[in-house]
Amino acid sequence: MVHLKQITLISLIGVMMMTQWAYASDITLEQAQIAIQAAVAKAKELNTKMDISVVDTGSNLKAFVRMDSAWIGSIDIAIKKARTAILFETNTGEIGQLSQPGKPLYNIEHSNGGLITFPGGVPIKTKTGEIIGAIGVSGSMVENDQAVAEAGAASLSK
Amino acid sequence: MVHLKQITLISLIGVMMMTQWAYASDITLEQAQIAIQAAVAKAKELNTKMDISVVDTGSNLKAFVRMDSAWIGSIDIAIKKARTAILFETNTGEIGQLSQPGKPLYNIEHSNGGLITFPGGVPIKTKTGEIIGAIGVSGSMVENDQAVAEAGAASLSK
Amino acid sequence: MVHLKQITLISLIGVMMMTQWAYASDITLEQAQIAIQAAVAKAKELNTKMDISVVDTGSNLKAFVRMDSAWIGSIDIAIKKARTAILFETNTGEIGQLSQPGKPLYNIEHSNGGLITFPGGVPIKTKTGEIIGAIGVSGSMVENDQAVAEAGAASLSK
Amino acid sequence: MVHLKQITLISLIGVMMMTQWAYASDITLEQAQIAIQAAVAKAKELNTKMDISVVDTGSNLKAFVRMDSAWIGSIDIAIKKARTAILFETNTGEIGQLSQPGKPLYNIEHSNGGLITFPGGVPIKTKTGEIIGAIGVSGSMVENDQAVAEAGAASLSK
Repeated sequence: MVHLKQITLISLIGVMMMTQWAYASDITLEQAQIAIQAAVAKAKELNTKMDISVVDTGSNLKAFVRMDSAWIGSIDIAIKKARTAILFETNTGEIGQLSQPGKPLYNIEHSNGGLITFPGGVPIKTKTGEIIGAIGVSGSMVENDQAVAEAGAASLSK
Repeated sequence: MVHLKQITLISLIGVMMMTQWAYASDITLEQAQIAIQAAVAKAKELNTKMDISVVDTGSNLKAFVRMDSAWIGSIDIAIKKARTAILFETNTGEIGQLSQPGKPLYNIEHSNGGLITFPGGVPIKTKTGEIIGAIGVSGSMVENDQAVAEAGAASLSK
Repeated sequence: MVHLKQITLISLIGVMMMTQWAYASDITLEQAQIAIQAAVAKAKELNTKMDISVVDTGSNLKAFVRMDSAWIGSIDIAIKKARTAILFETNTGEIGQLSQPGKPLYNIEHSNGGLITFPGGVPIKTKTGEIIGAIGVSGSMVENDQAVAEAGAASLSK
Repeated sequence: MVHLKQITLISLIGVMMMTQWAYASDITLEQAQIAIQAAVAKAKELNTKMDISVVDTGSNLKAFVRMDSAWIGSIDIAIKKARTAILFETNTGEIGQLSQPGKPLYNIEHSNGGLITFPGGVPIKTKTGEIIGAIGVSGSMVENDQAVAEAGAASLSK
């Protein structure tokens, strides 16, 4: 997706940049694998077994790995976290704070075929801040899930 | 899953044990029926009518019985409890404590085609502690469901 | 379900029989297990590994077993065959002949959450011909599936 | 799951043991990635863009990649092909020949939440012939899908 700000910028830089924006607007398999590799490294550092998924800006699955001995229940959760993060372009945990009883987005989890709104889903941004996809991680305490997802996302934004 | 301890043991005992290990890696129908029989006995002792399911480590149904006059609404719950217990290798009731409003796994029930996170789902372990499947029980108060599930699981771990 | 004919009959026989009719109108767990045991015996005789399910007259699952090494893809098929057989009170294979392209029930498989209309699903009848449930078998060639289902059903009607 | 250290230990015990261990095993992430890498290489050789999935023996997703510019409609098809292949321990294309109108398994695709029965799903076997999972490929003509799936599977069986 190319946003208005970007179009303004593009018009300044010229046609050559167009192509680059086009590429930058959606995560490549190579980028997805870099993110997953960084996430797996973090998971090992934390001594955890994780399910890790990456989706593109269209919320469609780009890559997935389940580490050996990771929960099979986390396959779907990892994918739903990544989808939830890109669907609203925000960390899943932030949505979860708004979906509690009495809060503005109460039970938003019923939408989109099922959302997961606790931590572990994080948008993936380029170095220039553009969102190109999202990563979802599940397999341990949510603090670990979030740390692993952030490590994955950070590998492409730093 | 084959753990390191087991291999050490196997190397001491030899080829005969191998067959037993092969069986231990996933629940057999004979084991599932022993667990169900123990669960039914416990259900009768408690004067309850239960739906009882057993799944393997891949969360696929291995065996199921619905006692006469047990709720038909408990068919799906018993199966979902067994699936939930194996998906995260833990008692369903423990997940349910973490999925309450404000807790870390709020609304995790939306994943995996629907989880049941109140008591009554219990992983089934061998005498050596290896998880080989799970049992799910529904049909009465959750305390009874849990007691019957535990009786079923205990029949294979003691 | 208690039908009108049955009620007429019941009124002739008296109150004591009422209880027996109540049981006869829907398969008991004991009956389901007899049928499954007969089906497993037939499956072994044919040197096959089967998934076998029994549903009651309400199409709700009563009992299920998956023999060791039987296909996991046959779990759902065995259950759907039993459901299909009771939903229309006929052998699944007969429905399958009518659901072919150009035939009266073309693509009826899209109804009821998915039907399976090839052989292997058979209504279960009492000795007096009353339908009390159905058995569904999957795991081999459809001829074997059907033979095993018939053996299971026959154990209660002979 | 059998890990590398374990295999070293097992190799001390003997070849007979290997085969028996093989029964207890399930595809590792390392094996899944080898299969996917071989599949991607074949896809490039054929000048195609593919979605490639690997599932374990319980039909649970182990790894997935979508090559850049591959169809997003093929994500689900690649996963369903892998699932179909492991559910019945056979190539999807062989099931598809039996599920045609008038054939024994007509409309089997309605089972198991949706099967895909045209070529591109292949069981993954070890060198000793044991099935440890399956690979599903979608993104081109089915002949190419099948060739890529076979290349992926062959990387672990040769």
